[in-house]
Amino acid sequence: MSEAVRFGVSISPELIEQFDELLTRRGYTNRSEAIRDLIRKELVEQEEIEGKEMVGTLTIIYDHHVRELSEELIRFQHDHHMHVLSSLHIHLDHDNCLEIIVVRGAGPKIKHLADRILATKGVKHGRMVITSTGGDLPK
Amino acid sequence: MSEAVRFGVSISPELIEQFDELLTRRGYTNRSEAIRDLIRKELVEQEEIEGKEMVGTLTIIYDHHVRELSEELIRFQHDHHMHVLSSLHIHLDHDNCLEIIVVRGAGPKIKHLADRILATKGVKHGRMVITSTGGDLPK
Amino acid sequence: MSEAVRFGVSISPELIEQFDELLTRRGYTNRSEAIRDLIRKELVEQEEIEGKEMVGTLTIIYDHHVRELSEELIRFQHDHHMHVLSSLHIHLDHDNCLEIIVVRGAGPKIKHLADRILATKGVKHGRMVITSTGGDLPK
Amino acid sequence: MSEAVRFGVSISPELIEQFDELLTRRGYTNRSEAIRDLIRKELVEQEEIEGKEMVGTLTIIYDHHVRELSEELIRFQHDHHMHVLSSLHIHLDHDNCLEIIVVRGAGPKIKHLADRILATKGVKHGRMVITSTGGDLPK
Repeated sequence: MSEAVRFGVSISPELIEQFDELLTRRGYTNRSEAIRDLIRKELVEQEEIEGKEMVGTLTIIYDHHVRELSEELIRFQHDHHMHVLSSLHIHLDHDNCLEIIVVRGAGPKIKHLADRILATKGVKHGRMVITSTGGDLPK
Repeated sequence: MSEAVRFGVSISPELIEQFDELLTRRGYTNRSEAIRDLIRKELVEQEEIEGKEMVGTLTIIYDHHVRELSEELIRFQHDHHMHVLSSLHIHLDHDNCLEIIVVRGAGPKIKHLADRILATKGVKHGRMVITSTGGDLPK
Repeated sequence: MSEAVRFGVSISPELIEQFDELLTRRGYTNRSEAIRDLIRKELVEQEEIEGKEMVGTLTIIYDHHVRELSEELIRFQHDHHMHVLSSLHIHLDHDNCLEIIVVRGAGPKIKHLADRILATKGVKHGRMVITSTGGDLPK
Repeated sequence: MSEAVRFGVSISPELIEQFDELLTRRGYTNRSEAIRDLIRKELVEQEEIEGKEMVGTLTIIYDHHVRELSEELIRFQHDHHMHVLSSLHIHLDHDNCLEIIVVRGAGPKIKHLADRILATKGVKHGRMVITSTGGDLPK
């Protein structure tokens, strides 16, 4: 990694005061770190708009008593093993399972995979969040 | 307004380069202005979490041929005139109207008003976006 | 418009009970109306994914004391009059203005216009919400 | 589980036709299943508004070369073991790690935990998605 550089930001005293309060509440100890995080957040949103390769984290809730559902979910993930990185299973209660399936690929492709999983009978609910693959995201 | 102050941000050359490219694409001519906008965006998100007074812009689409719908929408807005600031009407085509209703109040209150309007028969679709009242948002 | 048809939905008693409670809270008096609204909501999300022509409602907050800002916002809107349908202005307090700018066009195009407006010096904050033009959205 | 019941939905032929097309594209083979999913989606959004116990899936990207970062992330998760259910680690490339941390608790509490993790030096980016614990979500 290359050396850090510095740039100056001109700001009103009121705005920087409110920002510092927010940083304290969120647990930041360093203003530069917070600014860099805000910048990377915008860059990731832009990556998504441009259709770059992304990582998707799909969280689903399902009832494992539904006949053949677990097998179907596993089979589907294997059929798409090029895009499915990994999955994590958590037992929420006697009936409900939480499964997190991590996928990687172009935005529309991984959204389509998520749609297919969400449409599976027995999957009660789910939501996907999309983040960067990290490779293009500088320190 | 008080005088602007300055603070320095330490950053990797790669990250500032990608940020500058993004700013050019979005039409910014000034890095400080962009940083201030990012900071205000976080402050507005925090205001929403804390349940402060907000402004909501509700955009709805409806068919003005539906019997008594226009009257009902106007009556509802008058009944809640303490929260409804203004509305704007646009004729999208022969059948469809776009109406934008600006509301002001605590987050849960204005979400509830929006729900009631969206539930009105003949309102085909709608979405609300929440922003700040501006008063607490420094330059 | 053509005659309404009917279809049946198979559902657990627990799920329909929770749905009915939600509808009461939101002010629905009719279950079919609520189901149609849910369906249209999905269709609008799909329109957005497919890059169809959409309507965007951009809400911005700015300080009208900023030199030449009002003129610049008006000039920009005129330069893009093919996409800007209308705008609504509200005086929030002594300093702050709320302006709602309604734009129409392909998703990426209207997002780009919004970015340009948000990047204007003096525009403190803004958010856009995207809805359908209504034309393809059945009753 | 109790027996399924049936209810009828009145709808225009145009709207049901567009809905059926959408279902095919998303991989649904059964209209009732799709309607039930739409209903559960609304119920989960309502749970979130009401501050019920939720499950959050936080996806973060970090550079494992940052000194003591891995230890700090593990220590933080142990300090909050009442809320942290599990975590999954994926090696994205030579430098970048993806870590998914599953948390459970009231919405504001788990958002605060996520803020603290995102503020940690070396965590480049992250996003959280909130879903239901499943317990109140009927079949």
